[in-house]
Amino acid sequence: MVVKAFVFIEVAAGKSREVVAGITDLQQKRKEIQSVEAVTGPYDVIAVVEGPNVNAVGDLVTKNIQSVSGVMRTVTCLAMKLG
Amino acid sequence: MVVKAFVFIEVAAGKSREVVAGITDLQQKRKEIQSVEAVTGPYDVIAVVEGPNVNAVGDLVTKNIQSVSGVMRTVTCLAMKLG
Amino acid sequence: MVVKAFVFIEVAAGKSREVVAGITDLQQKRKEIQSVEAVTGPYDVIAVVEGPNVNAVGDLVTKNIQSVSGVMRTVTCLAMKLG
Amino acid sequence: MVVKAFVFIEVAAGKSREVVAGITDLQQKRKEIQSVEAVTGPYDVIAVVEGPNVNAVGDLVTKNIQSVSGVMRTVTCLAMKLG
Amino acid sequence: MVVKAFVFIEVAAGKSREVVAGITDLQQKRKEIQSVEAVTGPYDVIAVVEGPNVNAVGDLVTKNIQSVSGVMRTVTCLAMKLG
Amino acid sequence: MVVKAFVFIEVAAGKSREVVAGITDLQQKRKEIQSVEAVTGPYDVIAVVEGPNVNAVGDLVTKNIQSVSGVMRTVTCLAMKLG
Amino acid sequence: MVVKAFVFIEVAAGKSREVVAGITDLQQKRKEIQSVEAVTGPYDVIAVVEGPNVNAVGDLVTKNIQSVSGVMRTVTCLAMKLG
Amino acid sequence: MVVKAFVFIEVAAGKSREVVAGITDLQQKRKEIQSVEAVTGPYDVIAVVEGPNVNAVGDLVTKNIQSVSGVMRTVTCLAMKLG
Amino acid sequence: MVVKAFVFIEVAAGKSREVVAGITDLQQKRKEIQSVEAVTGPYDVIAVVEGPNVNAVGDLVTKNIQSVSGVMRTVTCLAMKLG
Amino acid sequence: MVVKAFVFIEVAAGKSREVVAGITDLQQKRKEIQSVEAVTGPYDVIAVVEGPNVNAVGDLVTKNIQSVSGVMRTVTCLAMKLG
Repeated sequence: MVVKAFVFIEVAAGKSREVVAGITDLQQKRKEIQSVEAVTGPYDVIAVVEGPNVNAVGDLVTKNIQSVSGVMRTVTCLAMKLG
Repeated sequence: MVVKAFVFIEVAAGKSREVVAGITDLQQKRKEIQSVEAVTGPYDVIAVVEGPNVNAVGDLVTKNIQSVSGVMRTVTCLAMKLG
Repeated sequence: MVVKAFVFIEVAAGKSREVVAGITDLQQKRKEIQSVEAVTGPYDVIAVVEGPNVNAVGDLVTKNIQSVSGVMRTVTCLAMKLG
Repeated sequence: MVVKAFVFIEVAAGKSREVVAGITDLQQKRKEIQSVEAVTGPYDVIAVVEGPNVNAVGDLVTKNIQSVSGVMRTVTCLAMKLG
Repeated sequence: MVVKAFVFIEVAAGKSREVVAGITDLQQKRKEIQSVEAVTGPYDVIAVVEGPNVNAVGDLVTKNIQSVSGVMRTVTCLAMKLG
Repeated sequence: MVVKAFVFIEVAAGKSREVVAGITDLQQKRKEIQSVEAVTGPYDVIAVVEGPNVNAVGDLVTKNIQSVSGVMRTVTCLAMKLG
Repeated sequence: MVVKAFVFIEVAAGKSREVVAGITDLQQKRKEIQSVEAVTGPYDVIAVVEGPNVNAVGDLVTKNIQSVSGVMRTVTCLAMKLG
Repeated sequence: MVVKAFVFIEVAAGKSREVVAGITDLQQKRKEIQSVEAVTGPYDVIAVVEGPNVNAVGDLVTKNIQSVSGVMRTVTCLAMKLG
Repeated sequence: MVVKAFVFIEVAAGKSREVVAGITDLQQKRKEIQSVEAVTGPYDVIAVVEGPNVNAVGDLVTKNIQSVSGVMRTVTCLAMKLG
Repeated sequence: MVVKAFVFIEVAAGKSREVVAGITDLQQKRKEIQSVEAVTGPYDVIAVVEGPNVNAVGDLVTKNIQSVSGVMRTVTCLAMKLG
């Protein structure tokens, strides 16, 4: 079973490009990162990630994504398949 | 593997008691609800729930808890065990 | 050239399931809707859509998605590929 | 009589892991800390604590938890058993 | 031991007077209400209450104060004597 | 005639104890400070003050209370006796 | 001694004109209302009022201004002459 | 001398199209409306207007634009040519 | 024709007195500043200014008032005389 | 086909003039910038830009406008022509 999450990312002023580049680099070693894109609207960047469970997603976000230079704050939204 | 979530609940004006009672009743048939308590602070009631996966938690919140009379809005926070 | 957008959706209390079902139905006739999922966090549902240009995305959101019963408010975030 | 509180914790950017580890260490000497977990959603970490009265909870939060490196802000929500 | 709380009250438009009068009436039977006053600032009315414990304060707020006509929302702040 | 005010105080991270102690010290020379307590909820500390008029309360808050180390921001709410 | 206050007023959608007219009418019998004007920015209308003391200003706002049709919410800011 | 303003408009759920159409109709008789467009982001529609002075802009917004069906709230931002 | 504006001012912690003094000094050379006062409520200081047009008000606020030591942020609200 | 966007800009305290000047300079080499003006209200400066597509607008905002000294945060709102 796979857990999918949208990770909304706020970046330091003027750092959208660096953050997108940094997370794109991460994709080499962390295949769970499906996509990462700069966006208009209340957040600066959105990454879509998948993992085997909630804890794996938590590890990916707190260990890897939050360590990218320019990342200020992340909000993780887990997708739920309602029965 | 078990997924644990804190469900923050905002209730209609003056309905904390009814909401706590309604979710306590739910505990009879939905054993995943570990606890439910009125609280001081930015939310009115907090329920702690567990389920086999994220989807089960989502079903519990959107099918059962959100149907309790007096519940206005819920915010679900999933616990993550960081490695 | 394709424009991609994340559409964050707030729904009426307890209507996440109906909104996901309603937008899933929409996918039959509006192929631009890539995915729709209930989520934890500050929004209730996220749809990912694509269109040939910004206006087409705007039409899809304001004509189709906002007409689904239970949708209260949408925030459209356009993905930007930075050069 | 026991007072129970949910302590919502905001942490410095990228410090969820250190804060959870720091409060877990605290549990050795402050048995009133029932649990501490990183969470998705509007806060980064939630600790559940118990004490003999409100003042003891206040001491625990302001003396011990707020002194953990990486803790930026706490919101204490006291559980109330309504009669 | 006594628990003291500040209860911040938001009232329906133009109802400050009625709410202050209603809570003043309550003081006849609920001696735990120390004072109630209309105030300038982010809230409309502040009541100061005392009780033997947190649960008693919770009962007073959710059973009595929230039942006063015109009360829209309350925020209860418990005083903590730090050692 | 006496003017009474609730002064809501936000403090720097982990400084509630110092701020309460600092304002308690102030009470020696500024008898207008009726009480000062750490609180749960949206603010960290609440002081209740009285003065002969609005200007005296303003002086007390801006000259004395805001000078206590650790005070970040104050919100002054004046009590009004409605006729 | 005179107390001066700025009363920030939020009005129902499209009712700025009626509220300004209503408070202008009030000026006939309540001479404490110095001015009332529609404004751009976070509030819709600002009234400047004066009274012999805080309670008189509170009466004016809660009895008279809040009773004007179209007034949704008021925020009263008292001017303080700092010594 | 001409005063220019950006009018940010929030509309009722699903009414962006009607509001844009309604303000476009207004342009027939109120030539001061330079443009009106649905937008992504925190507001739903932005109109750009010009008038001979601030009062004329105020009249246009409160008499005409706020009367269009579906308009919930407007925020008027006046352009300033800094010397 | 005269344009009148309320300038809401947020000041650095504990700097209300200095900001009021600084803007009072400004009144010597900028006669357009009608009044300046510390206030209770969501802002710290309110200045009332007048100028021949919007641009003059913008110059006064951005060149003079925002240069006063301790001023953190200003919100300018222009008065509109509705016809 | 042309994409038009309103770029709302928050600037560092007292830097509206420098930001407007800096973006005006940019107009020499980036013809996509239609206008830039200081404004009253929730934002400090608004630029109107046009580009051949969303990505070009994203490049202009993140590479050029966000690099202007004094720019703290931008919110990009894309205009949508609804069919």
